[in-house]
Amino acid sequence: MDGVDQLAPERKKAQFDVDEMKIVWAGSRHAFQVSDRIARLVASDPAFRKDNRAMLSRKELFKNTLRKAAYAWKRIIELRLSEEEASMLRSSVDEPAFTDLHWGMFVPAIKGQGTDEQHQKWLPLAYKMEIIGCYAQTELGHGSNVQGLETTATFDPQTDEFVIHSPTLTSSKWWPGGLGKASTHAVVYARLITDGQDHGVNGFIVQLRSLEDHSPHPGITIGDIGMKFGNGAYNTMDNGVLRFEHVRIPRNQMLMRVSQVTREGKYVQSNVPRQLLYGTMVYVRQTIVADASCALSRAVCIATRYSAVRRQFGSKNGGPETQVIDYKTQQNRLFPLLASAYAFRFVGEWLKWLYTDVTQRLQANDFSTLPEAHACTAGLKSLTTTATADGIEECRKLCGGHGYLCSSGLPELFAVYVPACTYEGDNIVLLLQVARFLMKTVSQLGYGNMPVGTTTYMGRAEQLMQCHCGVQKAEDWLNPSAILEAFEARAIRMSVACAQNLSKFTNQEEGFAELAADLVEAAVAHCQLIVVSKFIEKLQQDIPGKGVKPILEILCHIYALHLVHKHLGDFVSTGCITAKQASLANEQLRSLYSQVFTCVK
Amino acid sequence: MDGVDQLAPERKKAQFDVDEMKIVWAGSRHAFQVSDRIARLVASDPAFRKDNRAMLSRKELFKNTLRKAAYAWKRIIELRLSEEEASMLRSSVDEPAFTDLHWGMFVPAIKGQGTDEQHQKWLPLAYKMEIIGCYAQTELGHGSNVQGLETTATFDPQTDEFVIHSPTLTSSKWWPGGLGKASTHAVVYARLITDGQDHGVNGFIVQLRSLEDHSPHPGITIGDIGMKFGNGAYNTMDNGVLRFEHVRIPRNQMLMRVSQVTREGKYVQSNVPRQLLYGTMVYVRQTIVADASCALSRAVCIATRYSAVRRQFGSKNGGPETQVIDYKTQQNRLFPLLASAYAFRFVGEWLKWLYTDVTQRLQANDFSTLPEAHACTAGLKSLTTTATADGIEECRKLCGGHGYLCSSGLPELFAVYVPACTYEGDNIVLLLQVARFLMKTVSQLGYGNMPVGTTTYMGRAEQLMQCHCGVQKAEDWLNPSAILEAFEARAIRMSVACAQNLSKFTNQEEGFAELAADLVEAAVAHCQLIVVSKFIEKLQQDIPGKGVKPILEILCHIYALHLVHKHLGDFVSTGCITAKQASLANEQLRSLYSQVFTCVK
Repeated sequence: MDGVDQLAPERKKAQFDVDEMKIVWAGSRHAFQVSDRIARLVASDPAFRKDNRAMLSRKELFKNTLRKAAYAWKRIIELRLSEEEASMLRSSVDEPAFTDLHWGMFVPAIKGQGTDEQHQKWLPLAYKMEIIGCYAQTELGHGSNVQGLETTATFDPQTDEFVIHSPTLTSSKWWPGGLGKASTHAVVYARLITDGQDHGVNGFIVQLRSLEDHSPHPGITIGDIGMKFGNGAYNTMDNGVLRFEHVRIPRNQMLMRVSQVTREGKYVQSNVPRQLLYGTMVYVRQTIVADASCALSRAVCIATRYSAVRRQFGSKNGGPETQVIDYKTQQNRLFPLLASAYAFRFVGEWLKWLYTDVTQRLQANDFSTLPEAHACTAGLKSLTTTATADGIEECRKLCGGHGYLCSSGLPELFAVYVPACTYEGDNIVLLLQVARFLMKTVSQLGYGNMPVGTTTYMGRAEQLMQCHCGVQKAEDWLNPSAILEAFEARAIRMSVACAQNLSKFTNQEEGFAELAADLVEAAVAHCQLIVVSKFIEKLQQDIPGKGVKPILEILCHIYALHLVHKHLGDFVSTGCITAKQASLANEQLRSLYSQVFTCVK
Repeated sequence: MDGVDQLAPERKKAQFDVDEMKIVWAGSRHAFQVSDRIARLVASDPAFRKDNRAMLSRKELFKNTLRKAAYAWKRIIELRLSEEEASMLRSSVDEPAFTDLHWGMFVPAIKGQGTDEQHQKWLPLAYKMEIIGCYAQTELGHGSNVQGLETTATFDPQTDEFVIHSPTLTSSKWWPGGLGKASTHAVVYARLITDGQDHGVNGFIVQLRSLEDHSPHPGITIGDIGMKFGNGAYNTMDNGVLRFEHVRIPRNQMLMRVSQVTREGKYVQSNVPRQLLYGTMVYVRQTIVADASCALSRAVCIATRYSAVRRQFGSKNGGPETQVIDYKTQQNRLFPLLASAYAFRFVGEWLKWLYTDVTQRLQANDFSTLPEAHACTAGLKSLTTTATADGIEECRKLCGGHGYLCSSGLPELFAVYVPACTYEGDNIVLLLQVARFLMKTVSQLGYGNMPVGTTTYMGRAEQLMQCHCGVQKAEDWLNPSAILEAFEARAIRMSVACAQNLSKFTNQEEGFAELAADLVEAAVAHCQLIVVSKFIEKLQQDIPGKGVKPILEILCHIYALHLVHKHLGDFVSTGCITAKQASLANEQLRSLYSQVFTCVK
C-alpha cells in the first residue's frame, strides 16, 4: 500500500525534489545510482525472495541462505560487478550470512594482520571462495574483554608448530558467524605462548574442516549454538561453538605483520606501530553507523506509510476517521525518528571522511588525532545503534497490533538489528571509554593542550560554563548557534561535574567505578552534540534540489529539540536553559511537526 | 546455574527470611502455597516441557499447544483442581493458547452480557468444553475505536433472525485468539440494526464451525493471520481472520442483558446500568498489572543470575575477573527493574482491592468512584506494561550476547509479553483517557468537588503548587513524605500547566489534540505517583519475616529515586526539586544500590 495515495489531496504533491532528496541520502549521485540499480536487480530476482523467511524451519532457512549466497556469488561474477557493486548486492540481499564474515572479517584480518607472504598464499584462495573463513575471537566467557581470552597457542620448537588448545569450558569459541556449519578456516585469536611465556592475544589461521568432505579436522569440536531472537533474523547465520584439543598448525599460520615468532621460538615485535590496527576499528564502526541510518530509515518508512493509511477515531458525521499520522502523539514519536535517520546518515558520512583522514595521518606516522577519533567512533557506534534498536521497536509499536505481525516486516527488522548494540563493543562499555577520554581531556584543560576535532568546544570550557541561553521566544530555537551552544554547554558542564566528583575520590579507579552511571550520561551528552553539530555543518553546505535544504533544516531542528526535551533534566539542572526556554523548545517542536506536512504539500 | 553460589562468600547467606519474602510476593501464605505446588506439578511433568519451543515449526508448535491444552484439561479434572488451582495451572503452563480466550473472554462475556436463559444454555457447554469459544471484536481496520466497528447484525423480523455480515474488507475480524483454527463459536461484536436504525455495537453468539467435522459454516470465511513476532511466543496461538457473508443466527443469540430486541424487532434498553460493564474492564486490567509484575520478575531473575555468574574485566594479579553485578552501570540498569517488579506487584495487589470495592459500590448503585477507578486502572495498565516490555528488553541486553540466544529465555519472554502494550487499550490512547480525567478534575477544583481515591492529592493543589522540597542531604530522600510530596507536586504542577495551556485554545478539543504529548506526560506523572504511594502504603503495614521489610524499603526508595532521575526534567523544570536536590537523590540512589548487597549478606 502506498501511504502517500491516502494523504489528503493538498498534501499529495511533494514540494521538494524527491530525486535530489534520494541523492542527498545516498551521499552522491553515483552512490544513489549504484544502490538504486543493484536494489532493483535484487528485488526483481525471485531467487532472492525473502517474504517467506518467517515461516521456514531453521534447517530450511539455513539451506536457503547457502543457496542465496552461492547464487549471489554467481551473479556477481556473471555481471562482472565492481567491488562496490558486489558489496551493495550482498547488502541488498538483506540476510545475515556466513559470507558476511568471510568478506567482512576473515579477509580483512588477513589483509591487516598478515605478512605479504601470507597475503600471497591465503588471499587468492579466499577471493575465489575456495576456502571459507570466519573470525573466531569471542569465547563463551569472554566478550568485551578481549585481553581475557583463554585459548592458547603454544609454540613447539621441535616441530615448528603452534598447538592450539581450549583449556577450559569458558575458553570455547562461541558466537563466530559462519563457524557453525559453513567455514573451512578461521582466524583464531589465542594467547601466544613461547617458552612458557605469555605474549598476549594474537591471530592464527586455522583450518577447521576438510576441503574434501567438510568433516571437522581431528581435535576440533564444532557446532551451531542454536536459535537466536526472532523469526528468520540471525537464524540464517550459523553462529558457532568451537573447541580445540591440542590442534597443531604450522608456524607460518600465525598472522605475523605486527609480531613474529622465529624458528627458534623467539618472540619479536616488528616496528609496525600497533596503532595501525585502530584504523580498522574506525572503519568497522563507521560502517555500523551507516547501517544504523539504513535500518532506522526502513522502520520509519514502514511506520510512516502505516500512519498515513491507518485511520482511527475522529470520524465526523460518519465520514472517514482521522489518519493516525495527524495525531500529535504519533508525530511526537515518529518524526524524531525520521529526523534521527537523517542525522545518523550525515554523521555516518562525516565518519567516512574521518576514516580517510585517520588513515592518511597513520600513514604519515601522525597519531595525534587517534585517541579523539577512537573515542568519537566508539561513542557514535553506541549512540546510533541504541537509538536505532529502540527506534525500530517504537516504529513497531506505532503500527499498533499490525506491527506485531511478521508480515509488517518490523519484527524481523528489530530482531536482526538489535545485536548491533552488543557486538563490536557493548554500548555501555563503549560509552565508558568515551567518558574516560572526556575526563582525561577535562583534566588537561588549561595546561596548553588544546582539545582537537569533536572536542574542540572543550577548549572554550570557561565561557561555556558561564553562558546563558539567549532564547526568548519559540522561533529563537531555530537559530543553529543557540542550539549548538546549549548542547555544548550541557556536554561540558556534565563532564566537568563528573570530573569534580571524581576528584573527591582518593583512588581514581574507584571513583570511576562508583560514578560510572553519571559518566555514561556525560558521554551521551558529548556524542549527541557531535551528531547535532554534524547535521548543522551539513546544512551549511550547498545542497542542490528544490526544497531539499528547507526540509532537512526542519528535520535538523526536530532532531535537536526532541533531544532537549528528552534530556530536559540535563539541560535544566546544569542551568544551560531555563524551564521557560524548555517550554518554548516544546512549542517550537510542535510547530516543526506541522511544518513537516507543509513541506510535502 | 545458580547465581547465588557464585557470589562472594560474605554475600552468600541471605540475611532475610526468604520464605516470608516469597509470601509477600504471592500476597498471602495460601496464595504462595497454591502457586508453589502447582508450579512444581507443571515443572515436573514432561508433557509440559517448553524448552524445545523455539525450534518447532509453526505447525508443530500449534499441535503441541493443542496437545498441552487437552492434557492440562485432563489433569485439572483428574486432580479435581479448584478454580483457583486450575487457573494457576493454566498460567504455569506458560504458553498462549486458544483456551485463554475461551476461559478469559468467551465465558466472561456470556456471564456478563448474557441473560439467565443464555447462561443456562451456553455456560454448561462452555464449562465442559463441548464448545470452544473466542472473542471476535477487533477488525482489520478497527482496534482502539470499538464504536467504529463495521460488522453488521441486521434483524430480520420475517424469520426472527439476525443477519451477520462483513460489508467491507476493513470489517474483517482480525486478531481474535483461538479463531484461526480451534474455536467452534465466537462472541461477535457487530452493529445492531433494526428497521434500518443503527443501535451501536452489541455482542452475539455465533457458531463458526461444525461440531461434527470442524468445517466452517456456510457464509463464514476463516483462517489464521500468520506468523507473529518471536520464536514460539504467540505463534502457539491461532489468531484469526473471519468474514461473514450474510450469516443467519436466531434472535436469542444476541447477548441481551443490557439491551434487547423483541420478536417484533423493537430495540429495548433494560434498566441494567451500562456502568456495570466497566467493572469487567477494571477486572481485566487488574489482571494485566499482576501479569506485568510476574513477567518483569522472571526477566529480572534471569538477568540477576547472569550478572552474578558472568565476570568481565577487572582481574587482579591473574585472579578471577569482576562479577558484572558489581558494576554500577549494571546495578543502575538492573536494580530499578527489580524494584519495579515489586512496585507493580503491590500496586496490582491494591488493584484487586479496588476491584472488590468498585464491584460492591456498583451493586449498591454507587457510581461515584467509577470514573476515578477507570482512569486509575487505564493508567496503571499503560504504565506497567510499557515499563515491563522495556524492562524485559533491558534485561536481555544486560545479559550481553547471551541474552540474544533463545536458550536464555529472554527473547521469547519479550516477544510474548510485548503485545500487552497494545491489546486491551493501546498504551498511549489509555494515557490520553487518564489525561482527560485529570483535566476534568483540575477544572472542577475549587468548586466544592473534592477529588477522590488516587486523585485526593489534587484537593491540596494550592499547597502543592507552592511547596518547596525540604531535602538537604542525601539521606533526607529516605523520608517517605519527602518522596510523596515531590511526586505529588510534580504531578499536580504538570496537570495544572496543561490545563492552563489548554485554556488558551478557544476549541478545547483542538487544544487537547495539539497538546496531546504534554498531556501524556502529565498522565504518566500521575500514574507514577500512584505506584510510589501504594508501595509506601504497603510498607506502612505490618510485614512479617526477618529482614523482609528493610529490603522492601530499599527497593521502594530505589523505585522512587530512579524515577526522579529518569524524569529529572519534570521535577526540576516545575520547581519541585532543585538541581542540588536532584544530585543528592542520585547520591542516595548509588548508596541504595550498595545496600541491596548488604541486605543479602
